[in-house]
Amino acid sequence: MTHSALASALRLYLVTDQVSLLGHTLTDVMMAAVQGGVTCVQLREKQLTTRDFVAQAMALSALLRPLHIPLVINDRIDVALACNAQGVHLGQSDMPVELARSLLPPEVFIGWSVETMDDVTRSASLPVDYLGVSPVFATPTKTDTHTPWGLDGLRRVRAITALPLVAIGGIHSGNALDVLRAGADGLAMVSAICSAPDPRLAAQTLRTLCDGI
Amino acid sequence: MTHSALASALRLYLVTDQVSLLGHTLTDVMMAAVQGGVTCVQLREKQLTTRDFVAQAMALSALLRPLHIPLVINDRIDVALACNAQGVHLGQSDMPVELARSLLPPEVFIGWSVETMDDVTRSASLPVDYLGVSPVFATPTKTDTHTPWGLDGLRRVRAITALPLVAIGGIHSGNALDVLRAGADGLAMVSAICSAPDPRLAAQTLRTLCDGI
Repeated sequence: MTHSALASALRLYLVTDQVSLLGHTLTDVMMAAVQGGVTCVQLREKQLTTRDFVAQAMALSALLRPLHIPLVINDRIDVALACNAQGVHLGQSDMPVELARSLLPPEVFIGWSVETMDDVTRSASLPVDYLGVSPVFATPTKTDTHTPWGLDGLRRVRAITALPLVAIGGIHSGNALDVLRAGADGLAMVSAICSAPDPRLAAQTLRTLCDGI
Repeated sequence: MTHSALASALRLYLVTDQVSLLGHTLTDVMMAAVQGGVTCVQLREKQLTTRDFVAQAMALSALLRPLHIPLVINDRIDVALACNAQGVHLGQSDMPVELARSLLPPEVFIGWSVETMDDVTRSASLPVDYLGVSPVFATPTKTDTHTPWGLDGLRRVRAITALPLVAIGGIHSGNALDVLRAGADGLAMVSAICSAPDPRLAAQTLRTLCDGI
């Protein structure tokens, strides 16, 4: 995929979180979000057994594949291979990027979370396809993260890399346009969609914002 | 590998457990056990990040490879691929065996834990290379397991499969010969070696028992 094709695919990027589902099933929330206009889904599971993680990934993959919406697996190369995911997202405590690249088919894209400018600089020599700018704003979903980048930080990242940028952390309809204007190609969200009273409507509102810029 | 070559390689099988190390490093305990006569090492990690699990697996692999002692990775196909492990061990909540087989190079062997006679019967039509008979005796190391097989159960398993059998759970020098006589090809141990005051001596004692039968 070219940078610009990937950047479009990542435009409105749902990151799943079982904890935030407010009693709905993951599948229901994801499908509502997809109907609302989500363009990419990342499955992130830290508690499930491998068997359950694979089963969940396969179920989502079966729903997303006919819609041509990429499924991205967080951290686990084994699960990504098992469900033929289109992408993998790696953080700083996941498998090193070069190693992951060597284990994945060439068409599977790799996203990588950057937490410092050093990470961004390093990314130039790594086989990564997009960067996750994490966190842009403070967020209750992830508590183990660095100081938020803020809009200024995002602009500084934008200035030194041509890779597609997905911003994550504390994004909602009130600040989404600012984040896009600061240079993000995509907006990633957990609770703004998963925990919305109406995930479809929440996604639709955000998608309209994304399309209007 | 033929059944009999694999059975020999699995003869004295160390399963690592960070919790049982009594303040020693995993590497030190493993190398002492190897000097004492361990023929195979399984790395089992449920708490580490993927990055740390891969680093640990690579460190052990670098030590074991020149000694021609197979390294088996528990559960994680991604880690096994990353460190070029010789084997993978799968339990009932890990990736389904057929799927794991499709993701691994053909020379990587697969062990599978059987907890019921139904599992043993099913194994005949699965791409598995050895069975872990788990637990043979009650054990404090794993608390989420089924009723122990006992020596009678092990004999019943032996009677209906030609696959190499590795017995695990509550094995020590006092019952090792009984387990081998009941049909086990290999003895797997966590605490009898990891938590021994002298892991090398513990392994040596068990190896002498294995070689004498």
